[in-house]
Amino acid sequence: MKSIGVFDSGVGGLTVVREMINQLPGEDIVYFGDTARVPYGIKSKETVIRFSIENILFLLKQDVKLIVVACNTASSCALPVIKHNFKVPVIGVISPGAREAVYASRNKRIGVIGTKGTVKSRTYEHEIKKLEPKAKITAIACPLFVPFVEEGWFSGKVVMDVANKYLKPLKKAGVDTLILGCTHYPILKPVIKEIMGKNVTLIDSAKQVAIEARKILDSEGMLSAARKGKHKFFVSDNPEWFSELAARFLGEKVTNVRKVNYV
Amino acid sequence: MKSIGVFDSGVGGLTVVREMINQLPGEDIVYFGDTARVPYGIKSKETVIRFSIENILFLLKQDVKLIVVACNTASSCALPVIKHNFKVPVIGVISPGAREAVYASRNKRIGVIGTKGTVKSRTYEHEIKKLEPKAKITAIACPLFVPFVEEGWFSGKVVMDVANKYLKPLKKAGVDTLILGCTHYPILKPVIKEIMGKNVTLIDSAKQVAIEARKILDSEGMLSAARKGKHKFFVSDNPEWFSELAARFLGEKVTNVRKVNYV
Repeated sequence: MKSIGVFDSGVGGLTVVREMINQLPGEDIVYFGDTARVPYGIKSKETVIRFSIENILFLLKQDVKLIVVACNTASSCALPVIKHNFKVPVIGVISPGAREAVYASRNKRIGVIGTKGTVKSRTYEHEIKKLEPKAKITAIACPLFVPFVEEGWFSGKVVMDVANKYLKPLKKAGVDTLILGCTHYPILKPVIKEIMGKNVTLIDSAKQVAIEARKILDSEGMLSAARKGKHKFFVSDNPEWFSELAARFLGEKVTNVRKVNYV
Repeated sequence: MKSIGVFDSGVGGLTVVREMINQLPGEDIVYFGDTARVPYGIKSKETVIRFSIENILFLLKQDVKLIVVACNTASSCALPVIKHNFKVPVIGVISPGAREAVYASRNKRIGVIGTKGTVKSRTYEHEIKKLEPKAKITAIACPLFVPFVEEGWFSGKVVMDVANKYLKPLKKAGVDTLILGCTHYPILKPVIKEIMGKNVTLIDSAKQVAIEARKILDSEGMLSAARKGKHKFFVSDNPEWFSELAARFLGEKVTNVRKVNYV
Protein backbone atom coordinates (compact mmCIF):
# COMPACT_ATOMS: atom_id res chain seq x y z
CA MET A 1 0.00 0.00 0.00
CA LYS A 2 1.34 3.43 -0.90
CA SER A 3 1.98 6.03 1.81
CA ILE A 4 1.44 9.74 2.25
CA GLY A 5 4.83 11.53 2.29
CA VAL A 6 5.33 14.58 4.47
CA PHE A 7 8.45 16.73 4.71
CA ASP A 8 9.55 19.68 6.81
CA SER A 9 12.83 21.42 7.58
CA GLY A 10 12.72 19.84 11.03
CA VAL A 11 10.24 18.80 13.65
CA GLY A 12 7.50 21.43 13.21
CA GLY A 13 5.73 19.55 10.42
CA LEU A 14 4.61 16.97 12.96
CA THR A 15 1.75 19.35 13.90
CA VAL A 16 0.44 18.57 10.41
CA VAL A 17 1.05 14.83 10.81
CA ARG A 18 -0.92 14.92 14.06
CA GLU A 19 -3.97 16.26 12.24
CA MET A 20 -3.50 13.78 9.36
CA ILE A 21 -3.50 10.87 11.83
CA ASN A 22 -6.70 12.25 13.39
CA GLN A 23 -8.52 12.58 10.09
CA LEU A 24 -6.93 9.78 8.10
CA PRO A 25 -6.17 7.09 10.68
CA GLY A 26 -5.90 4.30 8.13
CA GLU A 27 -3.17 5.93 6.05
CA ASP A 28 0.51 5.00 6.19
CA ILE A 29 2.64 8.12 6.61
CA VAL A 30 6.34 8.64 5.86
CA TYR A 31 7.81 11.78 7.42
CA PHE A 32 11.15 13.36 6.55
CA GLY A 33 12.69 16.16 8.66
CA ASP A 34 15.75 17.84 7.16
CA THR A 35 17.44 18.39 10.53
CA ALA A 36 20.94 18.56 9.00
CA ARG A 37 20.05 21.78 7.17
CA VAL A 38 17.37 23.23 9.45
CA PRO A 39 16.25 26.07 9.57
CA TYR A 40 14.95 26.95 6.10
CA GLY A 41 13.42 30.29 7.14
CA ILE A 42 16.69 32.22 6.86
CA LYS A 43 17.82 30.65 3.57
CA SER A 44 17.33 32.02 0.04
CA LYS A 45 14.43 30.99 -2.18
CA GLU A 46 16.81 29.28 -4.60
CA THR A 47 18.34 27.17 -1.83
CA VAL A 48 14.96 26.29 -0.31
CA ILE A 49 13.82 25.08 -3.76
CA ARG A 50 16.92 22.91 -4.11
CA PHE A 51 16.51 21.38 -0.64
CA SER A 52 12.78 20.79 -1.25
CA ILE A 53 13.39 18.95 -4.50
CA GLU A 54 15.94 16.71 -2.78
CA ASN A 55 13.40 15.96 -0.05
CA ILE A 56 10.74 15.10 -2.66
CA LEU A 57 13.13 12.74 -4.43
CA PHE A 58 13.78 10.96 -1.13
CA LEU A 59 10.04 10.60 -0.42
CA LEU A 60 9.37 9.32 -3.94
CA LYS A 61 11.81 6.49 -3.23
CA GLN A 62 9.57 5.54 -0.27
CA ASP A 63 6.71 4.89 -2.74
CA VAL A 64 4.31 7.70 -1.82
CA LYS A 65 0.97 8.50 -3.48
CA LEU A 66 0.71 12.09 -2.20
CA ILE A 67 3.20 14.57 -0.76
CA VAL A 68 2.49 17.22 1.86
CA VAL A 69 4.97 20.08 2.13
CA ALA A 70 4.44 20.72 5.83
CA CYS A 71 6.93 23.61 6.02
CA ASN A 72 5.61 27.11 5.42
CA THR A 73 8.92 28.39 4.05
CA ALA A 74 9.21 25.50 1.58
CA SER A 75 5.54 25.84 0.60
CA SER A 76 5.99 29.58 0.02
CA CYS A 77 9.19 29.32 -1.97
CA ALA A 78 9.10 25.98 -3.75
CA LEU A 79 5.52 24.80 -4.35
CA PRO A 80 5.08 26.21 -7.88
CA VAL A 81 8.36 24.62 -9.04
CA ILE A 82 7.48 21.29 -7.39
CA LYS A 83 3.98 21.21 -8.90
CA HIS A 84 5.39 22.14 -12.29
CA ASN A 85 7.95 19.32 -12.28
CA PHE A 86 6.52 16.31 -10.47
CA LYS A 87 3.60 14.03 -11.35
CA VAL A 88 2.76 13.09 -7.75
CA PRO A 89 -0.02 15.23 -6.22
CA VAL A 90 1.47 17.81 -3.82
CA ILE A 91 -0.21 19.89 -1.11
CA GLY A 92 1.38 22.88 0.59
CA VAL A 93 0.28 24.60 3.79
CA ILE A 94 -0.24 28.12 2.42
CA SER A 95 -3.47 27.99 0.42
CA PRO A 96 -5.35 25.88 3.02
CA GLY A 97 -4.36 28.42 5.71
CA ALA A 98 -5.27 31.38 3.49
CA ARG A 99 -8.66 29.84 2.72
CA GLU A 100 -9.49 29.27 6.37
CA ALA A 101 -8.39 32.81 7.28
CA VAL A 102 -10.60 34.43 4.61
CA TYR A 103 -13.50 32.30 5.81
CA ALA A 104 -12.92 33.25 9.47
CA SER A 105 -12.33 36.99 9.05
CA ARG A 106 -15.24 39.42 9.39
CA ASN A 107 -13.38 42.72 8.91
CA LYS A 108 -11.08 41.31 6.18
CA ARG A 109 -8.01 42.54 8.04
CA ILE A 110 -5.83 39.48 8.21
CA GLY A 111 -2.47 39.11 9.93
CA VAL A 112 0.29 36.67 9.00
CA ILE A 113 3.31 35.74 11.11
CA GLY A 114 6.09 33.55 9.74
CA THR A 115 9.79 33.21 9.02
CA LYS A 116 11.68 35.83 7.03
CA GLY A 117 11.54 33.59 3.95
CA THR A 118 7.77 33.14 4.18
CA VAL A 119 7.07 36.84 4.74
CA LYS A 120 9.47 37.93 2.01
CA SER A 121 7.84 35.59 -0.53
CA ARG A 122 4.43 37.30 -0.01
CA THR A 123 2.75 34.00 -0.89
CA TYR A 124 0.09 34.25 1.84
CA GLU A 125 -0.77 37.74 0.60
CA HIS A 126 -1.09 36.47 -2.93
CA GLU A 127 -3.29 33.50 -1.94
CA ILE A 128 -5.55 35.60 0.29
CA LYS A 129 -6.02 38.29 -2.41
CA LYS A 130 -7.07 35.61 -4.92
CA LEU A 131 -9.98 34.73 -2.60
CA GLU A 132 -10.71 38.20 -1.21
CA PRO A 133 -9.26 41.03 -3.30
CA LYS A 134 -10.28 43.65 -0.73
CA ALA A 135 -8.44 41.98 2.17
CA LYS A 136 -5.87 44.07 4.04
CA ILE A 137 -2.91 41.93 5.00
CA THR A 138 -0.22 42.69 7.57
CA ALA A 139 2.66 40.19 7.53
CA ILE A 140 5.39 40.17 10.17
CA ALA A 141 8.50 37.97 10.46
CA CYS A 142 9.11 36.59 13.98
CA PRO A 143 12.60 35.09 13.70
CA LEU A 144 13.09 34.39 17.42
CA PHE A 145 9.93 32.25 17.78
CA VAL A 146 11.54 29.14 16.27
CA PRO A 147 14.60 29.23 18.57
CA PHE A 148 12.27 29.79 21.54
CA VAL A 149 10.20 26.70 20.70
CA GLU A 150 13.29 24.57 20.00
CA GLU A 151 14.74 25.64 23.37
CA GLY A 152 11.50 24.76 25.14
CA TRP A 153 10.71 28.37 26.07
CA PHE A 154 6.92 28.39 25.60
CA SER A 155 5.99 31.08 28.12
CA GLY A 156 7.54 33.43 30.63
CA LYS A 157 8.63 37.04 30.66
CA VAL A 158 11.23 36.96 27.88
CA VAL A 159 8.90 35.19 25.44
CA MET A 160 6.07 37.60 26.31
CA ASP A 161 8.33 40.65 25.81
CA VAL A 162 9.51 39.46 22.40
CA ALA A 163 6.01 38.41 21.32
CA ASN A 164 4.62 41.79 22.38
CA LYS A 165 7.25 43.52 20.26
CA TYR A 166 6.57 41.36 17.18
CA LEU A 167 2.77 41.44 17.43
CA LYS A 168 2.36 45.17 18.05
CA PRO A 169 1.91 46.14 14.36
CA LEU A 170 -0.78 43.45 14.01
CA LYS A 171 -2.75 44.82 16.95
CA LYS A 172 -2.34 48.32 15.52
CA ALA A 173 -3.65 47.13 12.14
CA GLY A 174 -6.79 45.80 13.86
CA VAL A 175 -6.63 42.29 12.41
CA ASP A 176 -9.42 39.95 13.55
CA THR A 177 -7.69 36.85 12.16
CA LEU A 178 -4.05 35.83 12.47
CA ILE A 179 -2.41 33.05 10.45
CA LEU A 180 0.28 31.18 12.39
CA GLY A 181 2.39 30.83 9.24
CA CYS A 182 5.08 28.51 10.60
CA THR A 183 4.58 25.00 11.96
CA HIS A 184 6.47 25.88 15.17
CA TYR A 185 4.07 28.65 16.14
CA PRO A 186 1.03 26.60 17.29
CA ILE A 187 3.19 25.64 20.29
CA LEU A 188 3.21 29.36 21.26
CA LYS A 189 -0.57 29.71 20.87
CA PRO A 190 -1.25 30.53 24.57
CA VAL A 191 1.23 33.45 24.46
CA ILE A 192 -0.03 34.75 21.11
CA LYS A 193 -3.66 34.40 22.23
CA GLU A 194 -2.98 36.35 25.42
CA ILE A 195 -1.42 39.24 23.51
CA MET A 196 -3.85 39.36 20.57
CA GLY A 197 -6.95 38.97 22.75
CA LYS A 198 -9.84 36.54 22.51
CA ASN A 199 -11.53 38.35 19.62
CA VAL A 200 -8.73 37.47 17.22
CA THR A 201 -9.03 34.05 15.57
CA LEU A 202 -5.74 32.16 15.31
CA ILE A 203 -5.41 29.98 12.21
CA ASP A 204 -3.06 27.08 11.80
CA SER A 205 -3.46 25.25 8.56
CA ALA A 206 -2.93 21.67 9.81
CA LYS A 207 -6.63 20.79 9.90
CA GLN A 208 -7.33 22.22 6.42
CA VAL A 209 -4.31 20.42 5.00
CA ALA A 210 -5.62 17.09 6.28
CA ILE A 211 -9.06 17.83 4.80
CA GLU A 212 -7.47 18.61 1.43
CA ALA A 213 -5.40 15.42 1.57
CA ARG A 214 -8.54 13.37 2.19
CA LYS A 215 -10.32 15.11 -0.69
CA ILE A 216 -7.53 14.40 -3.18
CA LEU A 217 -7.10 10.77 -2.13
CA ASP A 218 -10.86 10.25 -2.26
CA SER A 219 -11.28 11.77 -5.72
CA GLU A 220 -8.41 9.65 -7.05
CA GLY A 221 -9.74 6.49 -5.39
CA MET A 222 -6.56 6.18 -3.35
CA LEU A 223 -7.91 6.20 0.22
CA SER A 224 -6.56 3.41 2.37
CA ALA A 225 -8.97 0.69 3.49
CA ALA A 226 -6.85 -0.12 6.55
CA ARG A 227 -8.06 0.66 10.06
CA LYS A 228 -4.75 1.81 11.40
CA GLY A 229 -1.82 3.07 9.32
CA LYS A 230 1.90 2.73 9.99
CA HIS A 231 4.01 5.86 10.57
CA LYS A 232 7.69 6.09 9.67
CA PHE A 233 10.02 8.92 10.60
CA PHE A 234 13.27 9.81 8.85
CA VAL A 235 15.67 12.69 9.56
CA SER A 236 18.97 13.87 8.05
CA ASP A 237 20.53 14.45 11.51
CA ASN A 238 20.00 14.11 15.27
CA PRO A 239 17.39 11.33 15.52
CA GLU A 240 17.52 11.40 19.37
CA TRP A 241 16.85 15.14 19.55
CA PHE A 242 14.00 14.68 17.06
CA SER A 243 12.44 11.90 19.15
CA GLU A 244 12.64 14.07 22.25
CA LEU A 245 10.98 17.10 20.65
CA ALA A 246 8.49 15.09 18.60
CA ALA A 247 6.12 14.32 21.47
CA ARG A 248 5.54 18.05 21.91
CA PHE A 249 4.38 18.44 18.31
CA LEU A 250 2.75 15.11 17.63
CA GLY A 251 1.09 14.60 21.00
CA GLU A 252 2.48 11.08 21.22
CA LYS A 253 5.89 9.49 21.61
CA VAL A 254 7.93 8.79 18.50
CA THR A 255 10.38 5.93 18.56
CA ASN A 256 12.43 4.34 15.83
CA VAL A 257 13.46 7.57 14.06
CA ARG A 258 15.90 6.69 11.33
CA LYS A 259 18.76 8.86 10.13
CA VAL A 260 19.35 8.94 6.38
CA ASN A 261 22.56 10.19 4.80
CA TYR A 262 21.26 11.52 1.52
CA VAL A 263 22.20 15.14 2.31
CA MET B 1 51.00 33.22 -4.09
CA LYS B 2 49.11 30.82 -1.85
CA SER B 3 46.35 32.08 0.45
CA ILE B 4 45.21 31.43 3.99
CA GLY B 5 41.85 29.62 3.95
CA VAL B 6 39.28 30.32 6.65
CA PHE B 7 35.88 28.68 7.06
CA ASP B 8 32.93 29.12 9.39
CA SER B 9 29.29 28.02 9.44
CA GLY B 10 28.32 31.57 8.56
CA VAL B 11 29.42 35.11 9.18
CA GLY B 12 30.85 34.85 12.73
CA GLY B 13 34.29 33.71 11.58
CA LEU B 14 34.92 37.17 10.19
CA THR B 15 35.90 38.25 13.73
CA VAL B 16 38.90 35.96 13.23
CA VAL B 17 39.59 37.32 9.74
CA ARG B 18 39.60 40.84 11.18
CA GLU B 19 42.42 39.92 13.57
CA MET B 20 44.32 38.09 10.79
CA ILE B 21 44.19 41.19 8.60
CA ASN B 22 45.52 43.25 11.52
CA GLN B 23 48.40 40.95 12.24
CA LEU B 24 49.13 39.54 8.79
CA PRO B 25 48.27 42.42 6.44
CA GLY B 26 50.29 41.02 3.55
CA GLU B 27 48.48 37.67 3.39
CA ASP B 28 45.83 36.76 0.84
CA ILE B 29 42.78 35.32 2.59
CA VAL B 30 39.98 33.13 1.18
CA TYR B 31 36.91 32.91 3.42
CA PHE B 32 34.08 30.41 3.10
CA GLY B 33 30.81 30.76 5.06
CA ASP B 34 28.45 27.76 4.88
CA THR B 35 25.31 29.90 4.99
CA ALA B 36 23.17 27.23 3.27
CA ARG B 37 23.56 24.91 6.26
CA VAL B 38 24.08 27.39 9.10
CA PRO B 39 23.91 26.95 12.11
CA TYR B 40 26.30 24.12 13.04
CA GLY B 41 25.80 24.48 16.82
CA ILE B 42 22.61 22.39 16.91
CA LYS B 43 23.84 19.64 14.55
CA SER B 44 25.40 16.30 15.53
CA LYS B 45 29.16 15.77 15.72
CA GLU B 46 29.02 13.36 12.77
CA THR B 47 27.25 15.92 10.58
CA VAL B 48 29.56 18.77 11.61
CA ILE B 49 32.56 16.60 10.66
CA ARG B 50 31.04 15.87 7.25
CA PHE B 51 30.28 19.54 6.56
CA SER B 52 33.76 20.58 7.76
CA ILE B 53 35.51 18.13 5.43
CA GLU B 54 33.46 19.44 2.48
CA ASN B 55 34.48 22.99 3.41
CA ILE B 56 38.16 21.98 3.60
CA LEU B 57 37.94 20.35 0.16
CA PHE B 58 36.50 23.58 -1.24
CA LEU B 59 39.28 25.67 0.30
CA LEU B 60 41.97 23.29 -0.97
CA LYS B 61 40.70 23.94 -4.48
CA GLN B 62 41.45 27.65 -3.86
CA ASP B 63 45.13 26.76 -3.39
CA VAL B 64 45.61 27.51 0.31
CA LYS B 65 48.77 27.04 2.38
CA LEU B 66 47.06 27.04 5.81
CA ILE B 67 43.48 26.56 6.96
CA VAL B 68 41.83 28.22 9.95
CA VAL B 69 38.66 26.59 11.29
CA ALA B 70 37.08 29.80 12.60
CA CYS B 71 33.96 28.09 13.95
CA ASN B 72 34.01 26.89 17.55
CA THR B 73 31.56 24.06 16.90
CA ALA B 74 33.55 22.77 13.90
CA SER B 75 36.82 23.15 15.84
CA SER B 76 35.37 21.23 18.81
CA CYS B 77 33.86 18.42 16.78
CA ALA B 78 35.99 18.03 13.68
CA LEU B 79 39.58 19.20 14.28
CA PRO B 80 41.10 15.83 15.25
CA VAL B 81 39.60 14.15 12.16
CA ILE B 82 40.75 16.99 9.90
CA LYS B 83 44.29 16.99 11.29
CA HIS B 84 44.43 13.23 10.97
CA ASN B 85 43.42 13.23 7.32
CA PHE B 86 44.80 16.32 5.61
CA LYS B 87 48.38 17.39 4.91
CA VAL B 88 47.69 21.13 4.96
CA PRO B 89 48.39 22.78 8.36
CA VAL B 90 45.12 23.46 10.20
CA ILE B 91 44.41 25.74 13.17
CA GLY B 92 41.24 25.64 15.24
CA VAL B 93 39.97 28.25 17.67
CA ILE B 94 39.74 26.08 20.81
CA SER B 95 43.33 25.57 21.98
CA PRO B 96 44.37 29.22 21.37
CA GLY B 97 41.37 30.35 23.45
CA ALA B 98 42.05 27.77 26.17
CA ARG B 99 45.71 28.85 26.35
CA GLU B 100 44.84 32.52 26.72
CA ALA B 101 42.23 31.73 29.40
CA VAL B 102 44.66 29.69 31.50
CA TYR B 103 47.20 32.50 31.19
CA ALA B 104 44.65 35.15 32.23
CA SER B 105 43.00 33.33 35.15
CA ARG B 106 44.25 33.91 38.68
CA ASN B 107 41.82 31.68 40.61
CA LYS B 108 41.78 28.93 37.96
CA ARG B 109 38.01 29.04 37.79
CA ILE B 110 37.29 29.40 34.10
CA GLY B 111 33.93 29.80 32.41
CA VAL B 112 33.06 28.78 28.85
CA ILE B 113 29.98 29.82 26.88
CA GLY B 114 29.21 28.35 23.46
CA THR B 115 26.71 26.47 21.31
CA LYS B 116 25.20 23.18 22.44
CA GLY B 117 27.59 21.28 20.16
CA THR B 118 30.66 23.02 21.59
CA VAL B 119 29.60 22.55 25.21
CA LYS B 120 28.58 18.92 24.66
CA SER B 121 31.96 18.09 23.06
CA ARG B 122 33.80 19.21 26.26
CA THR B 123 36.78 20.17 24.07
CA TYR B 124 37.50 23.42 25.91
CA GLU B 125 37.50 21.53 29.20
CA HIS B 126 39.90 18.98 27.78
CA GLU B 127 42.28 21.62 26.37
CA ILE B 128 42.26 23.69 29.58
CA LYS B 129 42.95 20.64 31.78
CA LYS B 130 45.94 19.73 29.62
CA LEU B 131 47.49 23.10 30.54
CA GLU B 132 46.15 23.43 34.09
CA PRO B 133 44.94 20.14 35.61
CA LYS B 134 43.57 21.88 38.70
CA ALA B 135 41.33 24.27 36.75
CA LYS B 136 37.62 24.27 37.58
CA ILE B 137 35.60 24.74 34.43
CA THR B 138 31.94 25.74 34.14
CA ALA B 139 30.57 25.46 30.58
CA ILE B 140 27.14 26.78 29.60
CA ALA B 141 25.32 26.62 26.25
CA CYS B 142 23.66 29.91 25.22
CA PRO B 143 21.54 28.89 22.22
CA LEU B 144 19.66 32.18 21.87
CA PHE B 145 22.78 34.35 21.57
CA VAL B 146 23.35 33.47 17.89
CA PRO B 147 19.76 34.33 16.83
CA PHE B 148 20.02 37.58 18.81
CA VAL B 149 23.20 38.62 17.00
CA GLU B 150 21.84 37.59 13.59
CA GLU B 151 18.69 39.63 14.27
CA GLY B 152 20.75 42.66 15.27
CA TRP B 153 19.62 42.56 18.92
CA PHE B 154 22.87 43.52 20.67
CA SER B 155 21.43 45.17 23.77
CA GLY B 156 18.12 46.03 25.43
CA LYS B 157 15.93 44.44 28.05
CA VAL B 158 15.22 41.11 26.38
CA VAL B 159 18.87 40.43 25.61
CA MET B 160 19.85 41.43 29.17
CA ASP B 161 17.17 39.14 30.68
CA VAL B 162 18.28 36.13 28.65
CA ALA B 163 21.97 36.82 29.24
CA ASN B 164 21.34 37.14 32.99
CA LYS B 165 19.62 33.76 32.97
CA TYR B 166 22.43 32.04 31.02
CA LEU B 167 25.32 33.62 32.93
CA LYS B 168 23.98 33.08 36.44
CA PRO B 169 25.73 29.71 37.03
CA LEU B 170 29.03 31.29 35.90
CA LYS B 171 28.72 34.11 38.43
CA LYS B 172 27.80 31.57 41.09
CA ALA B 173 30.88 29.49 40.23
CA GLY B 174 33.07 32.56 40.81
CA VAL B 175 34.90 32.42 37.47
CA ASP B 176 37.45 35.20 36.92
CA THR B 177 37.88 34.39 33.23
CA LEU B 178 35.20 33.67 30.64
CA ILE B 179 35.85 32.23 27.18
CA LEU B 180 33.47 33.55 24.52
CA GLY B 181 33.40 30.16 22.79
CA CYS B 182 31.44 31.13 19.68
CA THR B 183 32.48 33.65 17.05
CA HIS B 184 29.13 35.45 17.34
CA TYR B 185 29.58 36.25 21.02
CA PRO B 186 32.20 39.05 20.82
CA ILE B 187 29.40 41.19 19.37
CA LEU B 188 27.55 40.80 22.71
CA LYS B 189 30.65 41.74 24.76
CA PRO B 190 29.12 44.91 26.29
CA VAL B 191 26.11 42.96 27.62
CA ILE B 192 28.26 40.07 28.92
CA LYS B 193 30.75 42.51 30.48
CA GLU B 194 27.98 44.38 32.27
CA ILE B 195 26.58 41.18 33.79
CA MET B 196 29.87 39.47 34.66
CA GLY B 197 31.46 42.62 36.09
CA LYS B 198 34.77 44.29 35.31
CA ASN B 199 36.85 41.80 37.32
CA VAL B 200 36.06 38.97 34.91
CA THR B 201 38.34 38.78 31.87
CA LEU B 202 36.53 37.98 28.61
CA ILE B 203 38.54 35.88 26.18
CA ASP B 204 37.91 35.64 22.47
CA SER B 205 40.44 33.56 20.64
CA ALA B 206 40.74 35.63 17.44
CA LYS B 207 43.99 37.35 18.46
CA GLN B 208 45.67 34.11 19.58
CA VAL B 209 44.58 32.36 16.39
CA ALA B 210 46.26 35.05 14.28
CA ILE B 211 49.46 34.78 16.38
CA GLU B 212 49.49 31.02 15.85
CA ALA B 213 48.93 31.44 12.10
CA ARG B 214 51.90 33.81 11.90
CA LYS B 215 54.08 31.38 13.88
CA ILE B 216 53.27 28.43 11.61
CA LEU B 217 53.77 30.39 8.38
CA ASP B 218 57.04 31.82 9.71
CA SER B 219 58.43 28.43 10.76
CA GLU B 220 57.54 26.95 7.38
CA GLY B 221 58.98 29.91 5.48
CA MET B 222 55.59 30.65 3.96
CA LEU B 223 54.96 34.24 5.10
CA SER B 224 53.88 36.55 2.30
CA ALA B 225 56.25 39.29 1.27
CA ALA B 226 53.42 41.45 -0.06
CA ARG B 227 52.43 44.70 1.65
CA LYS B 228 48.71 44.28 1.26
CA GLY B 229 46.90 40.98 0.69
CA LYS B 230 43.73 40.31 -1.29
CA HIS B 231 40.64 39.02 0.49
CA LYS B 232 38.03 36.81 -1.19
CA PHE B 233 34.68 35.82 0.30
CA PHE B 234 32.59 32.80 -0.71
CA VAL B 235 29.27 31.60 0.75
CA SER B 236 26.92 28.69 0.02
CA ASP B 237 23.83 30.94 0.25
CA ASN B 238 22.58 34.51 0.70
CA PRO B 239 25.56 36.61 -0.45
CA GLU B 240 23.59 39.86 0.05
CA TRP B 241 22.69 39.03 3.65
CA PHE B 242 26.31 38.06 4.27
CA SER B 243 27.57 41.38 2.87
CA GLU B 244 25.15 43.26 5.07
CA LEU B 245 26.12 41.50 8.28
CA ALA B 246 29.82 41.27 7.45
CA ALA B 247 30.63 44.90 8.28
CA ARG B 248 29.53 44.26 11.86
CA PHE B 249 32.02 41.42 12.30
CA LEU B 250 34.88 42.54 10.07
CA GLY B 251 34.78 46.23 10.86
CA GLU B 252 34.85 47.08 7.18
CA LYS B 253 32.54 46.71 4.22
CA VAL B 254 32.61 43.50 2.24
CA THR B 255 31.67 43.60 -1.42
CA ASN B 256 31.90 41.01 -4.14
CA VAL B 257 30.77 38.03 -2.06
CA ARG B 258 30.43 35.04 -4.36
CA LYS B 259 27.93 32.23 -3.98
CA VAL B 260 29.20 28.72 -4.68
CA ASN B 261 26.94 25.77 -5.33
CA TYR B 262 29.06 22.92 -4.00
CA VAL B 263 26.62 22.05 -1.18
